[in-house]
Amino acid sequence: MNKDQVFERAAQRMGYSFEGEIRVGGHYVPLLRDGDTVYISGQIPRVGDQVMFTGRVGDEVNLMRAQDAARISVMRALALLQRACGSLESVRQVLRITVYVQCTVDFTQHSEVADAASDLLHEILGAAGTHTRTSVGVLQLPKNATVELDMIAAVKPVSAA
Amino acid sequence: MNKDQVFERAAQRMGYSFEGEIRVGGHYVPLLRDGDTVYISGQIPRVGDQVMFTGRVGDEVNLMRAQDAARISVMRALALLQRACGSLESVRQVLRITVYVQCTVDFTQHSEVADAASDLLHEILGAAGTHTRTSVGVLQLPKNATVELDMIAAVKPVSAA
Amino acid sequence: MNKDQVFERAAQRMGYSFEGEIRVGGHYVPLLRDGDTVYISGQIPRVGDQVMFTGRVGDEVNLMRAQDAARISVMRALALLQRACGSLESVRQVLRITVYVQCTVDFTQHSEVADAASDLLHEILGAAGTHTRTSVGVLQLPKNATVELDMIAAVKPVSAA
Repeated sequence: MNKDQVFERAAQRMGYSFEGEIRVGGHYVPLLRDGDTVYISGQIPRVGDQVMFTGRVGDEVNLMRAQDAARISVMRALALLQRACGSLESVRQVLRITVYVQCTVDFTQHSEVADAASDLLHEILGAAGTHTRTSVGVLQLPKNATVELDMIAAVKPVSAA
Repeated sequence: MNKDQVFERAAQRMGYSFEGEIRVGGHYVPLLRDGDTVYISGQIPRVGDQVMFTGRVGDEVNLMRAQDAARISVMRALALLQRACGSLESVRQVLRITVYVQCTVDFTQHSEVADAASDLLHEILGAAGTHTRTSVGVLQLPKNATVELDMIAAVKPVSAA
Repeated sequence: MNKDQVFERAAQRMGYSFEGEIRVGGHYVPLLRDGDTVYISGQIPRVGDQVMFTGRVGDEVNLMRAQDAARISVMRALALLQRACGSLESVRQVLRITVYVQCTVDFTQHSEVADAASDLLHEILGAAGTHTRTSVGVLQLPKNATVELDMIAAVKPVSAA
């Protein structure tokens, strides 16, 4: 299986489709390529027009659901990469993800939430999915999302892709 | 009008001047250029020595004022770019902004706050102002600022600027 | 004294050793090099297996201890750089640090916490330690850490190092 097929298998296992346009409002873009470096805007766990996981981990939302939220966010980032590059085979290296978790005052398992994103990157991209990571617990997120995740990645030069 | 003139027009419309040194305390710098990539430190809505917008959105501060705070923060980032490059015409592409919003537990319009910064980038820089973005709601910010914004941008090579 | 010696002097002054493996759990890495750019994962004030400073600044933790936490976090980042490059002499420029501070609702001295990290970068790396910075007050951090710090740095090409 190539990486695009592993991505599709993961989407099916989760029961979501990441096809169709990933829209953002306003004067910014979800992905921007500068040379071989790609910046991806903060992704919340939205599928189509619906935010699938809202609310605060440690209270309204449990750890497992927060991990699901992280998985959707990272799948969106991968879907954006796939569209921009034609194939996930063109991703040379995920460099950095930042995982923001909307949590309660005493929730401290942010790493466990972020692990769900990290594991999925490894499953789909293999060694190219190895990355550095920062996970943080924040007071709120856009649209009351449970998780937000942004990414910097290196892609193969267009000629080599 | 060139981009520096549009910047000046926006400053006048807001009623603030962004001339003069933008100082930071301590052993760090407001802007650092590495090759054609420029990193800009987190900017709070300060004009001269005064932080113009302090307090929490959703409670002490309303959405419109938070948007004003985001506008001042992004104007400061642009003023830094202008000084470092000689002209805003030298900005090739804003790559990433992160917008931190000091907010209440139930405030979820972070995107609307960040839109004010994104719109201003578009007004002043045109296509070069298109960027990726992450907006997050945080518990507090330095000096009780309502908004903090940092940036990564690509600038034209010195010879081509 | 070269930079590695100044690093060791600072470690001894703090009373901690940063030798030994800096481990992370899960499918991510503490440091990743892409060309001459190095990304470092969020570092909490951990020495060996123990998080030395936990809890909230402005309440359980005072400013001085938060500064100590920032110092340990930045020493970890430097230890990672030293191991990846062979010597801190190979660091060309620290480009960006983001300092997340777990704080109370009304704590606003995030810059003062981050100054401890900035000062240490300057002491150990000299001009190469000059950087841009964002400091933010957040609700919680992994393992209840008081501070988390991540970094982007430029290193000298392998041949020139």
